[in-house]
Amino acid sequence: MTGKLTIIGTGPGNPGQTTPQATDAIAAGEQFFGYGPYLDRLNLRPDQIRVASDNREEIDRARAALDAASKGATVCVVSGGDPGVFAMAAAICEAVETGPETWRRLDITVLPGVTAMLAVAARAGAPLGHDFCAISLSDNLKPWDLIERRLRAVAEAGLVIALYNPISKARPWQLATAFKLLREVLPVTTPVIFGRAIGRPDEHFAVGPLGEAHQQPADMATCVIIGSAETRIIERPGMDPLVYSPRSIG
Amino acid sequence: MTGKLTIIGTGPGNPGQTTPQATDAIAAGEQFFGYGPYLDRLNLRPDQIRVASDNREEIDRARAALDAASKGATVCVVSGGDPGVFAMAAAICEAVETGPETWRRLDITVLPGVTAMLAVAARAGAPLGHDFCAISLSDNLKPWDLIERRLRAVAEAGLVIALYNPISKARPWQLATAFKLLREVLPVTTPVIFGRAIGRPDEHFAVGPLGEAHQQPADMATCVIIGSAETRIIERPGMDPLVYSPRSIG
Repeated sequence: MTGKLTIIGTGPGNPGQTTPQATDAIAAGEQFFGYGPYLDRLNLRPDQIRVASDNREEIDRARAALDAASKGATVCVVSGGDPGVFAMAAAICEAVETGPETWRRLDITVLPGVTAMLAVAARAGAPLGHDFCAISLSDNLKPWDLIERRLRAVAEAGLVIALYNPISKARPWQLATAFKLLREVLPVTTPVIFGRAIGRPDEHFAVGPLGEAHQQPADMATCVIIGSAETRIIERPGMDPLVYSPRSIG
Repeated sequence: MTGKLTIIGTGPGNPGQTTPQATDAIAAGEQFFGYGPYLDRLNLRPDQIRVASDNREEIDRARAALDAASKGATVCVVSGGDPGVFAMAAAICEAVETGPETWRRLDITVLPGVTAMLAVAARAGAPLGHDFCAISLSDNLKPWDLIERRLRAVAEAGLVIALYNPISKARPWQLATAFKLLREVLPVTTPVIFGRAIGRPDEHFAVGPLGEAHQQPADMATCVIIGSAETRIIERPGMDPLVYSPRSIG
């Protein structure tokens, strides 16, 4: 008997931004694997099994979910945002590649979602309106000097930069160091956007210049978008400004 | 009297991937501005006004939509995918910045959506599971040598690359030229994913090595994802392979 494994992105947290496809998959699921706070958002029924784990246990969680599916369960693996962007889809693939042959025969589906940078960008205007990149600032899974090399390369190439995992209790200095590096390449007036829990009651949203960005509060759930030299701010009376990156250049 | 302007992303085209927020905004809209094929997907009511325009008339469309909102209408500007990624949100911002002062007082909301690269990535596995970028291959709005410089910079930096607007009747050679350039930096075995109309009846999906990528069909609605040197393919019996970029490196 073979089950089914669906990897779901719930979007940024506002229920209005969860796709119907994801909602249907959640309704059909029997066992749910994920980081506790993401599972809390699902309002599971009493007959649905909740297997919460810590944020840093992705590969163990992936193996447990694959094992449950291989025993016949209808399994959902839950990420916030999009499951393919610094989230569980890659962990599941890694577990399949290194796991028993039978896991390659499982019915595995990935359902996309609205990833954090898109929600933060929409709240700001259109800062991702031109070429952009997404870089995780966590040096748990890659060396810090590689992160610095990448930041310098993309800033010099003129891409807007979305930073995921910018800071945590165990990684307190990386974000300020990244801003310092970027100030060597970009004008200090470059717009920087901080977005956290966009569309939720505890939303934090701020826009300021790169030269003062290190003074903004941020945590591991914040997405930071750093403009290019082209990114513009339109002031509006009584409202947040619009921040956008023009479609054309040169 | 002042209206309201909402910039909507309908997602990749499968109705199950349109957010409830976008669906609600469509139900509440009075006038709809967008590229004809995107408006066709909305199933508008007879009382809702449809203003279709050609794909290359973004700034004129933006001005017409802002003008209608300033006259009191509830206006929806419609993009496929996410409106902030190479789509209408930036055109609206540009029109506001260069337009009459009254447009800065309008109630403007951007609703994010699932952008094409996330849907294509989900179909493939998790190719965007590590640092990645999105680059438009259209040289209508930026010089071709800038595109080449960016492609080389991001490939050398090890980012996965999602290409938007890879090819059109007026731009027939750019995609093959991009592949040629990338073969100078990346192994010829690097996985390349072609995705078009994912989740719709006319879906096209293919995975192959960079060395043969120029032989694949593509059009302006195709999103092309080019892996990094780390991106891996997991073969599966009787199913498409899983393509993923590992979470860790180095």
